[in-house]
Amino acid sequence: MNYKMIRFLLFRVMQITGILMVLPLIVALIYGEPFCGMVFGILSAVCLIGGAIGAHFKPDSYAIYAREGFVATALTWILISVIGALPFVFTGVTETYVDALFETISGLTTTGSTILNDVSMYYSVQFWRTFTHWIGGMGVLVFILAIMPMAGGYSMHLMRAESPGPSVGKFVPKVRETAKILYMIYIGITVLQILCLMLTGLNPYEAFTTTFATVGTGGFGLTNEGIGAFSTPTQIVIIVFMALCGINFSVYYYLITKRPMEALKSDEVKLYLFLMFGSATVIACLIYHQGITATPFESFHHSLFTVASVMTTTGFATLDFNQWPQLAKTLLAFLMLTGACAGSTGGGFKLSRFIILLRATKNELIYIVHPKSVKKVYMDGDPIDSTVVKSVSAYLSMYVVIFIISTLLISIDEFDYETNFTAVAATLNNIGPGLSMVGPTGNFSAYSDFSKFVLMFDMLAGRLELLPMLILMSPRTWSKR
Amino acid sequence: MNYKMIRFLLFRVMQITGILMVLPLIVALIYGEPFCGMVFGILSAVCLIGGAIGAHFKPDSYAIYAREGFVATALTWILISVIGALPFVFTGVTETYVDALFETISGLTTTGSTILNDVSMYYSVQFWRTFTHWIGGMGVLVFILAIMPMAGGYSMHLMRAESPGPSVGKFVPKVRETAKILYMIYIGITVLQILCLMLTGLNPYEAFTTTFATVGTGGFGLTNEGIGAFSTPTQIVIIVFMALCGINFSVYYYLITKRPMEALKSDEVKLYLFLMFGSATVIACLIYHQGITATPFESFHHSLFTVASVMTTTGFATLDFNQWPQLAKTLLAFLMLTGACAGSTGGGFKLSRFIILLRATKNELIYIVHPKSVKKVYMDGDPIDSTVVKSVSAYLSMYVVIFIISTLLISIDEFDYETNFTAVAATLNNIGPGLSMVGPTGNFSAYSDFSKFVLMFDMLAGRLELLPMLILMSPRTWSKR
Repeated sequence: MNYKMIRFLLFRVMQITGILMVLPLIVALIYGEPFCGMVFGILSAVCLIGGAIGAHFKPDSYAIYAREGFVATALTWILISVIGALPFVFTGVTETYVDALFETISGLTTTGSTILNDVSMYYSVQFWRTFTHWIGGMGVLVFILAIMPMAGGYSMHLMRAESPGPSVGKFVPKVRETAKILYMIYIGITVLQILCLMLTGLNPYEAFTTTFATVGTGGFGLTNEGIGAFSTPTQIVIIVFMALCGINFSVYYYLITKRPMEALKSDEVKLYLFLMFGSATVIACLIYHQGITATPFESFHHSLFTVASVMTTTGFATLDFNQWPQLAKTLLAFLMLTGACAGSTGGGFKLSRFIILLRATKNELIYIVHPKSVKKVYMDGDPIDSTVVKSVSAYLSMYVVIFIISTLLISIDEFDYETNFTAVAATLNNIGPGLSMVGPTGNFSAYSDFSKFVLMFDMLAGRLELLPMLILMSPRTWSKR
Repeated sequence: MNYKMIRFLLFRVMQITGILMVLPLIVALIYGEPFCGMVFGILSAVCLIGGAIGAHFKPDSYAIYAREGFVATALTWILISVIGALPFVFTGVTETYVDALFETISGLTTTGSTILNDVSMYYSVQFWRTFTHWIGGMGVLVFILAIMPMAGGYSMHLMRAESPGPSVGKFVPKVRETAKILYMIYIGITVLQILCLMLTGLNPYEAFTTTFATVGTGGFGLTNEGIGAFSTPTQIVIIVFMALCGINFSVYYYLITKRPMEALKSDEVKLYLFLMFGSATVIACLIYHQGITATPFESFHHSLFTVASVMTTTGFATLDFNQWPQLAKTLLAFLMLTGACAGSTGGGFKLSRFIILLRATKNELIYIVHPKSVKKVYMDGDPIDSTVVKSVSAYLSMYVVIFIISTLLISIDEFDYETNFTAVAATLNNIGPGLSMVGPTGNFSAYSDFSKFVLMFDMLAGRLELLPMLILMSPRTWSKR
């Protein structure tokens, strides 16, 4: 393993963290929060100087193979979480460092689960809290790849380890260019949403923080009332941008480069839109029929908001859907698990994996009945490699195993089945709220520190799609052979 | 498709059903239940005569390929359920035919879920109810294969469609001989348990019916109190035979043919015993520590009983484990899902599939890190075919999809998440009781007829391991091409 390169990369991450902390520092200055400003200022300076000193010692080789890629990705996310948690403790928002770490990992992984009973806090800290969603949405390493020249063709392994989905798509041959394009699109969407939100009457601070939580598909709320307190036009803007950020970003690249036919070819996006509007229509009928909402428009508005929030695993809520009919609730529960598109900022299992598994299973059924027919799995009109199918199957198994072990570990805390199961589901899928004690009106503070660490692992494993965390923890990775 | 052969086979199944109904007829005569005797007598006669007439017209060809094998298996189970349900309605045990069908399918698939609030009934009907467990435990078609000469080597497809596990094991080259050996072992175990139970003080009727429910790993209780009412020695006998029936029957064949080394090679049986005694020890400590049981012996007794009951998906209970610590309950929930060994009478996902998935996933992780290493999956010391790995992965996907669709469909009934999820889990895994409304002290009677049909499908799909039911329902199966 190229330890020197990993160390070098981690010091670069430290520098980036230092740069990112300048933003909440500015917010602290604007809103006159001197103590918070000092905290962010000192942390930023320490990160910048420490990172610069560490990164001064260049590695002998910049080579990053698959193993280094996964390990570096996992360590990057752990490092930025460990540093990013400090402002929460120093400003007294959380009582313990473990709680601060939980909140930060929940932010970076765009989960949106909270351990806070009361989310009102300093402007600058709240800004940092929602900003972690934005940072984590597109990824730290993708950012580094975009701004830092990397020698050789090794950077692909970093991109692959951090990008969501069964296979990583490169728009252009150079990884650095792809990373740049991704961030340009991401920043474009972000700016657009901030402007739209301001047009609907939000002040700049509300517009920035709400946008960070939306485009990162995170779901941290600014206030204890959450999104329900905003006006209908504001909520509509949020629906649109949640939905947009759950789509594979390659679609936007194709649209920008005037290749709409390529964009339309995506089976995943078609399924995504079909599920979103289909489920929203069904649920709108159900809640209208039950008299939960007064008009058809209102029914469809709340239903589409909830479906978009759940499918993209954002976790925002305008109504408490725990009161909705059981069929609607069960439908929402499954939409949470399947999640959004690969290559988006949304979480969950990803629809493309679901499509691949279904098609592979259909082929398997045909094969069992007609053993002479051997079919390939097609995606977007092209056959996909059998290694991708194998890796998706393995992903499902890993997912189930991590789910089982996590649930067993946190059940030591003696909470009920519903709380434990949905706590693991909500963190592993980066959803945010679960049901029962960890439901939309509850939070994760009651769990022991041990359980919190288990759930933090699940959030990181979910965001990084299992492999980096598993490879980091495998003894084989660290053996000398 | 060879429709004539399938029709011929179904008439044979009808004849077999007629023969099997002679047993409850005898019980009715012994216990002086003239009306029940008449019901069983008439049904038996109709099946025997109708079956004989139908089976008189021989098919042109006895060829059974994969597709016919799966379709014939599914139809066989549906036919025997449809006939087997009649005694329950005619004797007034259930109010509707749908309830009778639910109870019969639950019996045949060795699920043990009930729609009855009160399980006390006529001796002969209760005998038939538990006898369905025994019939379904080893399988109807395996029985037909054992007694009926089949031309050609086609019978393998029937055996494969009905046998539990990822790949069917033939002890001897001839399928008919294998089927005979399986039934000999099954009858041997049955007789042995009946004798042991009588030695512990049960009367012959109790011994027979309890044995049927045990060796079929079904779980229907004779009385509303269930197994808790029996003495400790009786319970110990039941533990031993539950555990024995969850083991792959090939182990007994190796032991009978004096090849103990072959028997010891089975990775699945090793894992089965390890999980059983490991979990029982952990749970015994937990319940002893909480003061639920008074002595260490008592703790281990109840814990081992529960673990054996849950792993083999029998569903018997001596204590209400809903009162146990959450860690114990969660452990039991997962043991229910993994289930027993392939080639046993137990249900669930089967441990061998679990082993194959874990090993394939481990290889996939190694492959991702070292793309040049391509490893095979080993089982019992030998490499297994990649098609088996693929089919196991497809099995997991199908399982998840059926689970999701079933839960959605029954959620129309507006019961809570816990009831719906565990109702599907309990039926699809052939466990029996779930949690909440369908828990050990509840039953399935509150569901609508529509939901009952969904759950019946799940029980059949679970017992026949998904494929026959899916292939039966696929439009492709019935297309002319």
